[in-house]
Formats: sequence, structure tokens, C-alpha cells
Amino acid sequence: MAKTENVSVKNREVKKIVPYYFMSTALIKTFCYVVKSHFKLQRLVNLPSVEVLSKRFTQSDPPPSWGSKKQHRKIKLNFGLNIMADPEVEKTLAPLRDAVKEQGDLVRSLKASGAPELDVKKAVAELKSRKKTLEDKELALMPADAFFDRAKMEDLCKRRFFYDQSFSIYGGITGQFDYGPMGCALKTNMLSLWRNFFVLEEQMLEVDCSILTPEPVLKASGHVDRFADLMAKDVKTGECFRLDHLIKSALEKIAADKKTAQNVRDEIADIVVKLDGMTKDEMNDILIKYKIKSPLTGNDLTEPIEFNLMFSTQIGPAGSVKGYLRPETAQGMFVNFKRLLDFNQGRLPFAAAQIGNAFRNEISPRSGLIRVREFTLAEIEHFCDPKEKNHPKFDLIENTEMMLYSACNQMDGKPAQKMTIGEAVRSNLVANESLGYFMARIQLYLLQVGIDKKRLRFRQHMSNEMAHYACDCWDAECLTSYGWVECVGCADRSAYDLTQHTRATNVKLAAEKKLPEPKTITVTEAQANKAVIGKQFKKDAKLITDALASLGETEAQELKAELEKVGECTVRADGREFKLTPEMVSINTLSKTVHVEEVVPNVIEPAFGIGRIMYALLEHSFRIREDDEQRTYFSLPPLVAPLKCCVLPLSNNTDFKPLIRQLSTELSKQNVSHKIDDSSGSIGRRYARTDEVAIPFSVTIDFDSLNTPHTATLRHRDTTLQLRLPVSDIPLAICDLASQRRSWEDLEKVYPKFEQQEASKAS
Amino acid sequence: MAKTENVSVKNREVKKIVPYYFMSTALIKTFCYVVKSHFKLQRLVNLPSVEVLSKRFTQSDPPPSWGSKKQHRKIKLNFGLNIMADPEVEKTLAPLRDAVKEQGDLVRSLKASGAPELDVKKAVAELKSRKKTLEDKELALMPADAFFDRAKMEDLCKRRFFYDQSFSIYGGITGQFDYGPMGCALKTNMLSLWRNFFVLEEQMLEVDCSILTPEPVLKASGHVDRFADLMAKDVKTGECFRLDHLIKSALEKIAADKKTAQNVRDEIADIVVKLDGMTKDEMNDILIKYKIKSPLTGNDLTEPIEFNLMFSTQIGPAGSVKGYLRPETAQGMFVNFKRLLDFNQGRLPFAAAQIGNAFRNEISPRSGLIRVREFTLAEIEHFCDPKEKNHPKFDLIENTEMMLYSACNQMDGKPAQKMTIGEAVRSNLVANESLGYFMARIQLYLLQVGIDKKRLRFRQHMSNEMAHYACDCWDAECLTSYGWVECVGCADRSAYDLTQHTRATNVKLAAEKKLPEPKTITVTEAQANKAVIGKQFKKDAKLITDALASLGETEAQELKAELEKVGECTVRADGREFKLTPEMVSINTLSKTVHVEEVVPNVIEPAFGIGRIMYALLEHSFRIREDDEQRTYFSLPPLVAPLKCCVLPLSNNTDFKPLIRQLSTELSKQNVSHKIDDSSGSIGRRYARTDEVAIPFSVTIDFDSLNTPHTATLRHRDTTLQLRLPVSDIPLAICDLASQRRSWEDLEKVYPKFEQQEASKAS
Repeated sequence: MAKTENVSVKNREVKKIVPYYFMSTALIKTFCYVVKSHFKLQRLVNLPSVEVLSKRFTQSDPPPSWGSKKQHRKIKLNFGLNIMADPEVEKTLAPLRDAVKEQGDLVRSLKASGAPELDVKKAVAELKSRKKTLEDKELALMPADAFFDRAKMEDLCKRRFFYDQSFSIYGGITGQFDYGPMGCALKTNMLSLWRNFFVLEEQMLEVDCSILTPEPVLKASGHVDRFADLMAKDVKTGECFRLDHLIKSALEKIAADKKTAQNVRDEIADIVVKLDGMTKDEMNDILIKYKIKSPLTGNDLTEPIEFNLMFSTQIGPAGSVKGYLRPETAQGMFVNFKRLLDFNQGRLPFAAAQIGNAFRNEISPRSGLIRVREFTLAEIEHFCDPKEKNHPKFDLIENTEMMLYSACNQMDGKPAQKMTIGEAVRSNLVANESLGYFMARIQLYLLQVGIDKKRLRFRQHMSNEMAHYACDCWDAECLTSYGWVECVGCADRSAYDLTQHTRATNVKLAAEKKLPEPKTITVTEAQANKAVIGKQFKKDAKLITDALASLGETEAQELKAELEKVGECTVRADGREFKLTPEMVSINTLSKTVHVEEVVPNVIEPAFGIGRIMYALLEHSFRIREDDEQRTYFSLPPLVAPLKCCVLPLSNNTDFKPLIRQLSTELSKQNVSHKIDDSSGSIGRRYARTDEVAIPFSVTIDFDSLNTPHTATLRHRDTTLQLRLPVSDIPLAICDLASQRRSWEDLEKVYPKFEQQEASKAS
Repeated sequence: MAKTENVSVKNREVKKIVPYYFMSTALIKTFCYVVKSHFKLQRLVNLPSVEVLSKRFTQSDPPPSWGSKKQHRKIKLNFGLNIMADPEVEKTLAPLRDAVKEQGDLVRSLKASGAPELDVKKAVAELKSRKKTLEDKELALMPADAFFDRAKMEDLCKRRFFYDQSFSIYGGITGQFDYGPMGCALKTNMLSLWRNFFVLEEQMLEVDCSILTPEPVLKASGHVDRFADLMAKDVKTGECFRLDHLIKSALEKIAADKKTAQNVRDEIADIVVKLDGMTKDEMNDILIKYKIKSPLTGNDLTEPIEFNLMFSTQIGPAGSVKGYLRPETAQGMFVNFKRLLDFNQGRLPFAAAQIGNAFRNEISPRSGLIRVREFTLAEIEHFCDPKEKNHPKFDLIENTEMMLYSACNQMDGKPAQKMTIGEAVRSNLVANESLGYFMARIQLYLLQVGIDKKRLRFRQHMSNEMAHYACDCWDAECLTSYGWVECVGCADRSAYDLTQHTRATNVKLAAEKKLPEPKTITVTEAQANKAVIGKQFKKDAKLITDALASLGETEAQELKAELEKVGECTVRADGREFKLTPEMVSINTLSKTVHVEEVVPNVIEPAFGIGRIMYALLEHSFRIREDDEQRTYFSLPPLVAPLKCCVLPLSNNTDFKPLIRQLSTELSKQNVSHKIDDSSGSIGRRYARTDEVAIPFSVTIDFDSLNTPHTATLRHRDTTLQLRLPVSDIPLAICDLASQRRSWEDLEKVYPKFEQQEASKAS
């Protein structure tokens, strides 16, 4: 595979210095940790925490039970900004804060003193538990700013087909959703904005790669071996349960039982805290010890099973090529790295981007659009020199104010803090300018889309979440009725992925960096005597010469020593060993002048979960009219609203038709998406329908409109205010409003108000 | 599944008249034929014909052999418009035309006389063969208008990463491609144009449905049972071959052998002609009779195997839900029909649309982007009343001139004809206005995208291709170096899909149509005595009452007769039988007044293969500069070009930087996608690179630009002409050029030419 590329690299006249990824053994040592935290990131949410956090909002609800889906419907929402102001509240929270800090300090000192890993892990688990208790209390103590009625919002989404369960006439499949016309248009507009905001404005290299991915690619990335959750099956019904959720729920039930002894309760508390890092065997022991049964039937459970979350299939008719549906879009960009680097004329840094679907076979998908089996990701891979992570455009965003929830504050039991990204980078809270630049850009995008600034924060991964991961990682989290949900991850993946694919394919995924001045180095190279090798090994000859050509510096030196000592040496290729004599190969140490060095770029990866952002956006923009509980709508920004305008004739009178048709044509010319609602309902009822599908502006053609010069009313969804405009002005006005070049307030200064009340028009 | 919906429909007070789909037994009878031709359409190409047609262009090449991919590189292209003008050519073709017509007449008379199906089939196969001979001769006789160098184009696509094979560092997978930055941007622009052109302008209901589809959905649609190709495997290597291709190629080899007797040759000719409609057993007999072996190894072959072209997987962890990757996007729209109809307030007609990926596990994908395993479809389902297929906007497009290749002309050996779509519909060549409207809109879209009008035709499916399919079907075909390739299918699918899903789910996928006046009808209804049934059948009671409620008119009458005759009757539900007594059910014939009737909409489906259109577009826009064979480029229309503009500083001089940055910002504000090429190449070389990625306009900042008022040159890719503009005018000018609101010629009238030659600048 890709042998020719390898050879050609090796045959170049100027041998580069030993590449970065062979030098950094520390890097190699951290791979297993990187994989772990990388997968956490990929899941796009800190899973247990969402479950737990959601409880905050449902204190009065019964504890969640398996199979019930309609719980947590009416939820207390809390933006939690002014908490520090109330001394009474602070008094209650103080001991909890201290408890967190105490444990945080313990973790720090354990780490500093190089304590055994198990001790650190246990201390970290306890720290997490104390953090949760604090956060729960914080939210419980605060006055609710508003109640959020999820049932009402879900009803609206379903009724006006923003999205709904897929294949429901066939009984439906959990974790799969179809977007209807409004959801689809909203998504399209969000993605189009994303493209303008990132791809065009930053001149990223957007690609569109295959979804079906052959196994070796995902083997190299670590997904085949490690992208799994543990589960247990009901032995009779075959129903599957995610093991950590199952154990936790079963043990909490036992602990809640009054008859349970205190020592058992303590033990359970200890287990629940450690659950996150437990092995398969440890979990199995717990299943046995506590006689945990299937929660729905009481049947026995199987032993824990590792369930890989990727959907597998066969590519081609022979059944021999195993493939998976990609679990993320990132790998498509990594395997195309060389082409992209070429496209960028060999220069670093550059960013690749991709929008596309990814698939994860969740064991038990829940929480609507938040945990699904099929979802759209928009991912960016910013490839940069590991030593040059400054960003040329950082000055443009450095004053962006952000709500940062640092690892340190999480450890100390302190809340998130507001600061500018410039301060955050200067104080080394955010690791480098490039990461900071993307964090600020992520926030700007989310705000433009319509995410509520008060319900947005950036949470830093704690050092234990990142283990030995040297770099920094921040998640953009949105507060929803399910708790804080990770919507965008922004991580420094270091050189992990490119290095892994290089190892798997022997194709060097690296860039060349011009050295400030030429450098003389010594290199050890094997010179194959192709004639002799060919004669001796026939068809294996190429294998051997390739292996010789791709030797690393250390390997070559070892071979040289072996050859000198024993008089022959052993070369491994294709899983076999070949003995070579000095006739066949000579190994020499030379002095060379090099002008460039090879650099394996680091990757900063902002990864957007589009469905999650959309869900958060729908919650954040859901409104109920003050004067009528039944009139619900989405106050989506015009920029992303599914349709920009609704044209309504006051009645079915045919005189209105020519004016409607003309207006529609003119709106199309301005690329203003619109609908015509000439159905028979009263105008008030039709306005309500228009509001429901989040159309920000309506034009009503009434009998006065028939007089020349034609005029019509323009209605604003959010305020229900109306203005009277010449019909000829309307298309451009709406185009400007829709692209947010002009605001409603701008128009109010130019055109007269139209005072007739909606109510009086409603029948 | 979806039982509640069924019940609620049945419980409505006003019983509708017996729905359309129970009345039309003729419709039901045609399903098998519909499925067959439907799948042909789905494959988006008439497969064998492409293979054959491609030969026309490669007369001097050796015959294609298995495994060779690089053949047919330099190809004679012929637009074939003036063929009728040359009397010499016509003299040679006349006997061939007559032969086609003679056979066409025979087919007609056989059909008219109700001849046995086998005879008709044989005659049709012979007709097809004669048509091919004629077309081959036509193309061979014509002077080539141009030579198309596919190797050069493919090289450019690869080098500048328009698209390339997926996972090639891992050895690659056939039939899978990644789009690089330029291909991706081109695709995005084509899709965005599609959305404006169809979804927005026609106010279609765009949806975005799941890719993973549970088996029952695709069982109902017919894909599980019939979406298959026959193949045979090499018993030793396991390599798979598409059976029809394999047999054809093996037999043609035998026939070409001089030692083969004439009677064998005749037999072979006969088989090749009939191959298209052969069964598995018939093909197996041929394999045995002619001792056909694996073409690559000479090994034995397995018996024919039916290979379903869908990728299968398991949904959920239990492994019990079988799913497939959708082979088309259409089914997502059909299963959402009720929601979409509701969204449209119950009114017909309306159109749904969907852009998304579909997957087909081709046995041996070939022909680059034309036959792939993963592809983007843009599909429209126009749902309309079967009796009202006029289109309100037909007048807007009726004068569109189109090249129509009617079934009749294909039968008579005549070429395609130019006519307006209005004429075609009025003369009943095209079945109805709605179909004609979409055909014209398809053409307008393709031309806007940049498809060459001379290489576009609409080919009607011949009556034998559609079998008893009552309606009409036209494919938009583009001429490429692979022959005429179907890029858009436009078919009337009648009520097939909705009917199938209704049968499978018991959910009525129908619309209500208000009757011109109320109508009195007699209906036979079963009244279940729920108390008695419940007592007797316990948990099966609901099953039985549901079955009684969903009886059709005929079934109810039969049950009534049975009850009266035998004193009990048998009801089938869930695969079981239940005996009911007169105590449990009474069946009455009533007279009712109805105001609406149920209508199962017919569906007109334009289905766009985006990858194929893009491939045809790349071929049609590929250019070689007259003065330099090495300078190749794509003359893509600005509207779809990946980037609209390149900004080039004449040199690396830092004085240019502020001007470049300012211009870039202004271009971004106008949403003009652009790149900055400040690399070190000469300006001529950089222009060549810019042309290669199809950028239509370049702005060069030179030393004169530094003087105020700042000016710069604007270069036109296609003509290489340059104008001198004030820098402040440039962003809007390019925005207008890119959106094709202004043409280059318009600009030439306003701004002075810049005469300095490119050549003189090139180093």
C-alpha cells in the first residue's frame, strides 16, 4: 500500500533530519491517554454529567425510570449569573466550596508528589463528586429566571415538523430523526452561515470525504479497538443496557432503600464515584455482588460486553473488505493531509474543514436531538507548526468577552469567570493564540446563530480529563433543559492522528519547514545491493529494499552494529525475517547538509455538533406570547430563520392575486425565501401560524394595497408591530432585514406605523 | 405500529368513498413492472448501453479487458448535430435506418396483435441491437468536432484536487471518491443553485431524512427483494464479476475467434441480444454451455449469485434491527408524506425535495465519478392529483427548446429532435404539463450550471423499458467521453410508493379531495362488539378490532356473505386467523353522504445525480489554451466556480500587503469567495495556476496600484483579457460578475483595457 510514495520520499537527494514524530518518545507514550480523552471529546458531551445535571432541574420529579421518555417536561431554568451577589446564598454554599477546594488541593499534592495512579484516580473521582454536589446546590438555591416548558416546545417542533422521529409510520427507530421543511431550512441556513464564517472568511480548505471507511483507517485512529461502551443484555429479551448507567441506577436504588445498612451505602457511594474508570471485570464483579438484574424484567443479565459504537458493513461484493460508517468526519481530512498540504503549496499553517454526517450506534439513545445515531458534524482541522501556535488574526478578536469555566475553578469549586480571550491567553489560561482565536470565533458564530449569551460557557477539560495530554481543550457548552450540553469541542489533538496514519501506511504525513540556516547532520543509511538481493530473494526483493529504505536512524545503527558483529543482519518485512549479508547491504554513517526539517503538524480541532447547536438554539429562542399561553413561537434571528417572509392576502379575493404573484417574483429575485399563505384562516390565526414556523417578517396585502401607489403592511414577529410600506420597497427591505444589514428599528425611522391591532383582525 | 393513526382515520364520522388504491386493480397488477423500470431509473443510467456507447469513441483502441483502467484516454468527441445535412452520409445510413424501422414496425404489430410475451421480448432485443448498429455508424461517419483528452483532464482534477480516490494512502477503495477544496466548493455551489432554483423558487418542502433505514421500509419499497445484480465469483480468488458483463465479454471473445463456426456465432449473437432479460438459471446454463471461466485467472466460477446492492448493517446493540444505507433519498419523503401533507395544510399538489447521500454496493464500480458506491442525490417528489397533472406555471417555460429523443424515434432509427416543450406536451409526446414543466426546469438548471447545450438531450424510456407503466419517463443525458450518461431522471412513479407503504403499515398515505358536490354511496362496514371480542380474545382483541376496522369494501362484503352462510367468519390479523360469530361482529351495508374523496397522489420524480452532473460539467468545461498544450483549465461559469476571484500581488513586496488585506476584507463583505496567491511564482505561472482551479477573475496589485486613487487589473480567465479598475470598484464588480448580474462585456464598456501582455510578465 502506497509503497511508491514511500520510496520516492526516501530517494530524495537531500535527506531530512529525523522527523519530529520519531524523536518525541514522550508523545508516543501519551497516545493511550490521548485516545481516551479524544474519544470523550468525540462523544461531544461529558456523558454522565449531562444525566446528573439534568436532575438539577427536576428536583420535584420522580427519579428517572427505564423506558419512560416524557419526564422532565416543565423545567426551571436558571442562568446563574448573579449568584455571587447574594451573601445568604454564599453562606450556604461556602462549606461546599471549601470541600471542593480541599479535595482539589489534595489532588494537586498527590500529583506533585508522584503518588500511585490509583490514589490520584480515587481522589479525582471524589473531587468530581464534590463538584457535582456544589453545582446541584448552586442551582437549587437560585431563583428561577424563567420556567421552560419542554413539552410545549416539543409539541411545536412536532406539529410544525421542525423535526420528528424517523420512520414513525413503521414504529420509528430511537436516536434517528428527520428534519422537516422548517428544521431542514434552519439547518441549511446554519451551515451556510458556518461556511461563510469559517471556510470563506478564513480561506479554509473544505473537503467532502467518503462516509464508508475501510477498517484499517479506523484501526489506525484507534476507533476499532477503543471506541466502545460496555453493556449488558437481558438474557431472555436480549434488551441492552449501558453498563455504567445500569449499575449506577441499580445501586442508587439499593442505597435509597431504608433497610440498607450504612456500610453498604458507603460502599455504594464509593463505587458510584469510581464507576467512570472501572474495567470490564470490575463492573462484572459489581453485577454479581449486588445481584443486579435487568431493570425492566428482573431477568438475569449477561456478562459485560464491549460494544463498539461504529456501524459496520461490507464494502464490495466479495465480503472481504470490512468497513464502518465514519464516527467523525476528521479522519477524512487526516488521510488527505498530503493532498491538502500540496494544495496549500506545502505551507503551514492551514485549516481543512468538512461538513458531513457521522454515525454512532448508541446503546440507548435518549434526550431527543442531543444523543442520536446519525448526526451532522462540521469540523475544522487547523494544521500548524507545533512550535508556532500564534495566530496572525488574534488581534481582531482579542477583546472578545467570554465566560470561561477553567479547570482550576472547577477544582476550586469556583464558578465560571468572565474575561476577554486576550487576557485568557496572556495569563496562559488558554494555551495558545490559535486555540484562543478559534474559541472566540466559535463564540461569535454561536451568538450570530442565536444562542443566548447567558446560556453559553466554555468549560476547560480538567487535567485529569486530559491525562498526560500536553495541550489544552475547551468545550463550548449550552445550557438547556437537559443541563449544560457540549455543542462544540475545541481541542489541540497534537500530532496524534497524523502520526498514527503514518505508522499504519508508511506514508509520511509531514510538512517541510525551511531551516533558518542549513545544518550539517550525521545520518546512518542502508545501501541495498539490489542485484544480489534480487537474485537471492526473487519476488521478496522489493519488500526487503523497501524495508531498508524506510529504516529509522536508530534501527539503521542497530543493523550496522549487528552486521559488524555477527557478519549478517536480520531485516523484518511483511511479518517475516530476512537474513542479509554484507554483500547485500552496506550501512554507512554520513555527514549531510540539510536545508529543511520535517515537521508533523499539530492539529487544533473545533468540532461542531450541528444538531445539538440547533436543539439548544430552539430552546433558547422558544417564546410564549404574554397574552396567550397557546401562542408559542421561535424567535430565531432572521439570518437563520427557515423562511424570511410570509405574504398574506387579507382574504381570498382574486383582486389580490396579481400583486401577490408580482411580490413573490421580486422576493425570489432578491433570494428571499418566503411562503404565501392564502389559506382561509383569519389574519390573526395566520399570523400565529407564521410565528410558529419562526418567520420573522410578514407582508399583508389588504384592500388599501390595491390603490396606487401600492402599499402593504410589514409585520415584525417578535414585537408584532406593523409598518406601512410601498410594495416596491418591500423586497429590498426584507432582503436587508433578513441579512441583518438593517434592523427593524432602522425601518421604524423611515416608515409610518400601522396601528390597526391584530386582535381586531382576528375572527 | 402506527395503530392509533389507523383507528382514528376509521373512527371519523364521515366515511370516505373507497380509496383510490383499492379500486385500481390494474395499478396493482403493474407493480412488478413498475419496480423493474423504477430500479432502472434508480441506477441512474442504462448500464449496458453506456458500456457499448463508450466504444463508439474508441474504435482504434483495443477491446476493453478486465482490470485495465486507463483505456479510452484520448477520445473523439462528436456533437452530431449536422449529420442530416450531408447526403453522402445519409446514403450510407439509409439501409441501417430502414432496418431499425422495419424491426420497430414488427414490434408494434406484435404488440398490437397480442403476440406471446417471449416473441415481443425477442423482437425488442433485436430492435435494440439494430439501434446500436445505427448509432455506432452515425458516430463513426461524422467528422470529429474536437478531440477530448481524458487523461489530461483527469490529471488536472487529481493535481489540483478537484476529486481523487478515497483512502488512497491505505490503497484506496474503488468506487469511492473524496472531493478536495475545489470539487467540494463546486458541489456546494451547484447544490446552492439547485436549492434556489427548485426549493426556493418553487416553494418546495425540503426535508433531511435519515440515511440508515430499517429493513421493513425497504422491503415495502421493493428494494430488499429486487434491488440486486447477478454476479459470479472466481472459486479460488473470490473475485466477483457482474454476470451480464462477464458473459457478454466472454461470448464476444469466442465469436471473434476465427475458428468459431458460423452457427455458434449466430447463437452467441442471439444470446447477447437477449441477455438483458435473462433469468439466473438461463445465465447459469450459458456459463456451463460455453465453459466460461474467471477472466483474470481462468479459474472456475460459482453459480450465479443474486447480490443485493444495498449496504446492510445492524441498528442498535441487540443486533435484532437490520438496517440498510438508503439506496436513494426518495423513501424518506414517502414515509413522511402525511407530515408533509399536513404542513401543506392538506392541499395537493406540492413537492418535497431532499439533498443527501445514497449508497449502492456496486459489484465492480468503474468510470470514475459515474459509477460510485457513495453519491449525492438531489431528488424532488411532486405529489399531485392523478387526474390533475396540468401545471400552473407551464406558460412560463412552454417555449423552452429541447432536444428530445422520443421512444418513437428510437424505434424508427431516427435521431433526437429539437422542439419546444409546449409542442411536446400539446402533441402528447410528453405525457402531461407537470412532467413537461419539470423537464424544462431540469434543462434550465443544467444549462445554468454550465452543461453544454449541444451535449444534452432528453431520452424517453421506450415502452418496453417501462412495460405496463402507464406514465411517461424521460432521462436528461449528457454526452461525455463515456458516451451518453443519464444525469437526471424524470419519471412519473404513479401511486406506487405511497400505496406500498400504506399496505405495509396500514397508515393511509392519501390526501382528501373535496368533491364538486356531495355524493351518496353505499358502504359495507363491520361493527365489532368490543365487549364480547375482548372477553373471548383478551390481548388479541385489539388486533381483531383493528383488522375489522381496516377492511376494504370487497373484503367486508365477502365476510358478510360468509357470516350469513356459515354462521361464522374468519378474520386474518398478524398472520393468524380468528373465528368470529355474529355475536362478535355485525356487518351492515349503509348508505352515506360523502363530501370528500380520498386520493392517493401520483408522484413525478426528478432525480439529480450530482456527481454525474459534476463530471459531465468538468468534461464540458475542460479547455486547453491554443498557444500552450500544457495550460489546461476549466471554464466553469462564475456562478458555480469554486472560487470567484484570486488576488495576486505582483511580487512579495511588503508595500502590497495593506492593499491586499483591505481588498480581501471587502471581498468577504460581499460574500465573494477568493484566494490570495502571494506565492513566489511569476505572474504568468500564477495565472496558469488560477486558471487550473477555474477561478474566473483575477485581481493583480502592481506598483501602479500603490498610487492614489488605487487601481488594479482585473483579468478574465476565459479570454485572458485585462481591464484597469479603481480598487474601490472591484469588490462589487466581482460580486456582480460572480452572480452573473453583469457580464465581462458589460465591464469592458466601462473600464479601459490593460494592454500589457501576460507573456511579457511571465518569467
